[in-house]
Amino acid sequence: MQRIHDAESRGFASDNYSGVHPEVLAAIAEANGGHQTAYGEDAYTARLQEVVRGHFGEQAQAWPVFNGTGANVVALESMLPRWGAVVCADTAHIHVDEGGAPEKAAGIKLLPVSTLDGKLTPELIDAEAWGWGDEHRAQPLVVAITQSTELGTLYTPEDIRAITEHAHARGMTVFLDGARIANAAAALDLPLRAFTTDAGVDVLSLGGSKNGALAAEAIVVLNPDAVQGLAYLRKHQMQLASKMRFVSAQLIALFDGDLHLRIAGHANAMARRLSDAVTAGIADGSLPGVALTQNTDVNAVFATLPAGVADRLRRSFRFYDWDPATGEVRWVCSFDTTEEDVDAFVAALREELAAAG
Amino acid sequence: MQRIHDAESRGFASDNYSGVHPEVLAAIAEANGGHQTAYGEDAYTARLQEVVRGHFGEQAQAWPVFNGTGANVVALESMLPRWGAVVCADTAHIHVDEGGAPEKAAGIKLLPVSTLDGKLTPELIDAEAWGWGDEHRAQPLVVAITQSTELGTLYTPEDIRAITEHAHARGMTVFLDGARIANAAAALDLPLRAFTTDAGVDVLSLGGSKNGALAAEAIVVLNPDAVQGLAYLRKHQMQLASKMRFVSAQLIALFDGDLHLRIAGHANAMARRLSDAVTAGIADGSLPGVALTQNTDVNAVFATLPAGVADRLRRSFRFYDWDPATGEVRWVCSFDTTEEDVDAFVAALREELAAAG
Amino acid sequence: MQRIHDAESRGFASDNYSGVHPEVLAAIAEANGGHQTAYGEDAYTARLQEVVRGHFGEQAQAWPVFNGTGANVVALESMLPRWGAVVCADTAHIHVDEGGAPEKAAGIKLLPVSTLDGKLTPELIDAEAWGWGDEHRAQPLVVAITQSTELGTLYTPEDIRAITEHAHARGMTVFLDGARIANAAAALDLPLRAFTTDAGVDVLSLGGSKNGALAAEAIVVLNPDAVQGLAYLRKHQMQLASKMRFVSAQLIALFDGDLHLRIAGHANAMARRLSDAVTAGIADGSLPGVALTQNTDVNAVFATLPAGVADRLRRSFRFYDWDPATGEVRWVCSFDTTEEDVDAFVAALREELAAAG
Amino acid sequence: MQRIHDAESRGFASDNYSGVHPEVLAAIAEANGGHQTAYGEDAYTARLQEVVRGHFGEQAQAWPVFNGTGANVVALESMLPRWGAVVCADTAHIHVDEGGAPEKAAGIKLLPVSTLDGKLTPELIDAEAWGWGDEHRAQPLVVAITQSTELGTLYTPEDIRAITEHAHARGMTVFLDGARIANAAAALDLPLRAFTTDAGVDVLSLGGSKNGALAAEAIVVLNPDAVQGLAYLRKHQMQLASKMRFVSAQLIALFDGDLHLRIAGHANAMARRLSDAVTAGIADGSLPGVALTQNTDVNAVFATLPAGVADRLRRSFRFYDWDPATGEVRWVCSFDTTEEDVDAFVAALREELAAAG
Repeated sequence: MQRIHDAESRGFASDNYSGVHPEVLAAIAEANGGHQTAYGEDAYTARLQEVVRGHFGEQAQAWPVFNGTGANVVALESMLPRWGAVVCADTAHIHVDEGGAPEKAAGIKLLPVSTLDGKLTPELIDAEAWGWGDEHRAQPLVVAITQSTELGTLYTPEDIRAITEHAHARGMTVFLDGARIANAAAALDLPLRAFTTDAGVDVLSLGGSKNGALAAEAIVVLNPDAVQGLAYLRKHQMQLASKMRFVSAQLIALFDGDLHLRIAGHANAMARRLSDAVTAGIADGSLPGVALTQNTDVNAVFATLPAGVADRLRRSFRFYDWDPATGEVRWVCSFDTTEEDVDAFVAALREELAAAG
Repeated sequence: MQRIHDAESRGFASDNYSGVHPEVLAAIAEANGGHQTAYGEDAYTARLQEVVRGHFGEQAQAWPVFNGTGANVVALESMLPRWGAVVCADTAHIHVDEGGAPEKAAGIKLLPVSTLDGKLTPELIDAEAWGWGDEHRAQPLVVAITQSTELGTLYTPEDIRAITEHAHARGMTVFLDGARIANAAAALDLPLRAFTTDAGVDVLSLGGSKNGALAAEAIVVLNPDAVQGLAYLRKHQMQLASKMRFVSAQLIALFDGDLHLRIAGHANAMARRLSDAVTAGIADGSLPGVALTQNTDVNAVFATLPAGVADRLRRSFRFYDWDPATGEVRWVCSFDTTEEDVDAFVAALREELAAAG
Repeated sequence: MQRIHDAESRGFASDNYSGVHPEVLAAIAEANGGHQTAYGEDAYTARLQEVVRGHFGEQAQAWPVFNGTGANVVALESMLPRWGAVVCADTAHIHVDEGGAPEKAAGIKLLPVSTLDGKLTPELIDAEAWGWGDEHRAQPLVVAITQSTELGTLYTPEDIRAITEHAHARGMTVFLDGARIANAAAALDLPLRAFTTDAGVDVLSLGGSKNGALAAEAIVVLNPDAVQGLAYLRKHQMQLASKMRFVSAQLIALFDGDLHLRIAGHANAMARRLSDAVTAGIADGSLPGVALTQNTDVNAVFATLPAGVADRLRRSFRFYDWDPATGEVRWVCSFDTTEEDVDAFVAALREELAAAG
Repeated sequence: MQRIHDAESRGFASDNYSGVHPEVLAAIAEANGGHQTAYGEDAYTARLQEVVRGHFGEQAQAWPVFNGTGANVVALESMLPRWGAVVCADTAHIHVDEGGAPEKAAGIKLLPVSTLDGKLTPELIDAEAWGWGDEHRAQPLVVAITQSTELGTLYTPEDIRAITEHAHARGMTVFLDGARIANAAAALDLPLRAFTTDAGVDVLSLGGSKNGALAAEAIVVLNPDAVQGLAYLRKHQMQLASKMRFVSAQLIALFDGDLHLRIAGHANAMARRLSDAVTAGIADGSLPGVALTQNTDVNAVFATLPAGVADRLRRSFRFYDWDPATGEVRWVCSFDTTEEDVDAFVAALREELAAAG
């Protein structure tokens, strides 16, 4: 097959617009050759268990799947009886970005709560955590948080500990959507377990695809009592890879060693570079009408732009509107974002604003 | 990541025990680099559409997904209203090997029919194709066939034409599970369209994973009027790849040119070599108590063995029991099965039988 | 069977705590005797169609079901593709009181919107009515309103017309939960069609059980193009009565003539009497610490009480807390609520407040 | 409401073509008046528990629902994890007559087995009872039998005991569809518990609607460890009656005392009279070309008729084709079938055959 795309073109649309990190691709090639038992009884999936236990503790189990929606929905389904509901932020990926998969693929009711910054708190959770034992109410038995959040913000370990204690005291368990968990670890400069296992999280999704993998996520069970039937659910929810060795190899490449931190740390740093440049441009008047709307804790920058600027800027660099009503946009950095990319983008923004002014 | 498996070990368990064909791996590497729009608006997914149209005609549309169960279930769901049912052989993969995914992930009722050789006929279909308009009966609106079948047998184009005419005359559409469609094309020495588009098939799954891909299948719609909402269903059924370029690249590697036929033809030939050797061994008395139970039309050989022989043989070569009640086993060949593998396997079989005798 | 309950005891808990209106019971007896075709091909279900057409116009079709949740969920399912979502008030019965049935029984995603008084408006609908064509978003294709609302408030025909025009302009259809539709008609002093058919509503549930029936509701389709497969859905959702003549007879008793208005008008009047007495008691200081929290448009009164009063009052009269956080309670009147019941209740309230003071 | 049907017309189509037994109607009237807590906390539902314990033993719990499909599907769902499957006869009502409700409403995979007479045996069950622990197979965890069967045949207590012992030894539980359980008890002249609790059945549906009720069935749990979440499932599956006292009152009328046996015994006797008359007519040559195809154990007679006779006979008496391919028909007797009805029907059959001959 011939290459038919421009391998030098990069934008700020999403960390899944970028490709596969070379070390991940090399791992896929290493895992190739010969026959390995399909559906997870291969050497790489066994090795992945060790890697995951190294990060998350001896009770941890990894269940590789294809994508983030699959990881989130199958995990939540395994944590809930048929009559269960999930308390989540109303910005949660599971609520706004998965096409209704929790409801449609798994019959899960979501109980979304408004937040300022994408982060739940015990008080916010209480808005929907009630009614246990009442058959007229889908039972709120799981709290779902995202780390780092969909708004590019971070929970501290203490934030998460407060949530898990609150939830556990009410008989609920806690799921952490870790599509960008490596960005969180890099930004917090903490081991993964500090804000998961050690903070009382029961189950998480371990993200690979937004951090340099081809297509690889895993459900990681930290509390085996919190789940039921994962093997069966993963199969009938169509997330069981036949040649699982290649999914596991990607995750080994990322998490056995520090590749996940190198990638995420770089992406975070590029977002910081972008955020700093915008802050400076706002201060010195060279970016008139621009405002940052969230802290840049990880690899995404949220900003508002004067009307029309976003669309013109997009002729050169891809990125998404976040809230068309307010003119808010989102800029995401990836493992392959360069300093030159960021600088060129800021320069282009400056030019568009000047042209607009 | 270090290699931790024996890349020279091969058996006869399944064509998904083998790895990735080198040309497929090369295609993944070619598609890498730079940013491409996620979720299918990339250059490779666009190119795949052309490839698929080349095989199946101008109306054909390809919808890449992760795995065969995903392709089958999402395709069937798109072909059926919520009250629909599927007539299939009781040996169909969708009935016996997908963990109940059609029922559990999509609410589809299956109406399985017994067959001699894994192949439906108009007469067999009529056993369950009735009751339209009766609200007490899940409506049989799709016929599902598998080509090549789960028993390693083949439909001729005329067989399929008879089924599609019969189905269409009753207001039903026809789905073809093509997990091993390349093996069928190679064995029949016919273009793919001869027994699909030209034979009246409405929708099929185009198999890659059992034919040398890492993880790549596509739903191929031949009759756009036969489906509804595929984009939405693929998403909420968790089969939408973010970095879809890499799924599409695998399928391009296989189907843009003749790689799919080279792989499948080789696997078929190895199964033929195995089948021929067994037949000869039966004839000359060197394989006492062995019998072949199905024609070896493609890459699988079905046989019965004397009690105990299978388990001893498995100490050297992996393969599956097919029907423990009768002692029937299944031997599958892959793109990387060698003549030496086949000969060594027959020799081992001969030895085990001698030891048993 | 012997009577084992106190047939003279009544409270203010719910209009489904009351029993069957004598005229409804008589209708059941009239429909008895002889054989009638099961599952809806009986004389009474045919007659019900005429009755419903009389109220709602020539296109109207009635689909009798067992209960309100069944009517709501099957109706919504018939209005939506598998990828659909429903915009509703966050106080909607379908969101807070049906145990997650829309999500769990029908895979419907709800998009709840906060309101002041249980009533949606075009502006409020727009908070969630967006994203059509985006596979990552469950498609908002139905707006659901309740008339009278769960907060005992009413939409005017103009309110509803504004919503249906807004929805239709966006390709959405409108469902009206009419569990208490007769209370609305009585309160508005308008024919049913004035705020349904004539206001652009596409489908509604016609409530019987809260208005004197034993167990009888119907899905009423006003716009046949807005639904698909109702016959099949009603069956596999387990809402198809075998002896449907008796469900239909209940609805004929209520709606062929003015029984529905007599019942609802009486219940509304009793709530008005209660509301007036409370207002007077607040004004004259005899009900210290009591406040009404919603307009008493139909048969429910919402009020806040000083701490502890509700529980003591409940020793004599059953009623529900509405919002434990604020001390809000709900008092509902039924067809059999008497003036004496209301007066005794107000007297008891006065006494409890005096004892508390 | 005016009567608009012929209360003297009766046929042989189904026991749900008949109406409500007068004693059941009287019980509904007795339960009327005053307020009772909705959703099952009423005096009649409490009394029903005692009645059910009297029949089935101290562990028995009754869960009233609206109809037989509701009872069957909610019961099965409560007995199964999401990955479960049910082994049943291929003539089972759940497989052929419920519109796919088990699959569509509850995601249950059915594993139908062919039988001669509608009755499973341990050997027949083994055709599908295998594959536990294999994620590729929906897990066969429940055996479902029907007593009396859909073919009008009966299991003896020993038959059922053999099935339950076989199932329990494999970790499966046993559900009994008792839509016509009273017909079985009457025919066997045994207490209900003899072939349920005492024979090891775990859960059953207790049929009322086909035995003189208006609309009343109950899930009866004999083994509380066999079910989970029934309260929640019944609600979100839309089978929770608000005015449950009236459902329970119907079942009390039938089962507190011998009304269920009087009704069923009479219906059985009428079927016996019909069967005897047909047998005699075959013997004496007055019913040429007629044959009985099943034993008449309860209230249904299965026969084959010469071509054309059924349709002409149906101009006077309603009844159903059972198998159009073979000309088999089904004649069902009800609580209100009279000796004169049977005699007139046989006379009409004789005349049609004479006219045909």
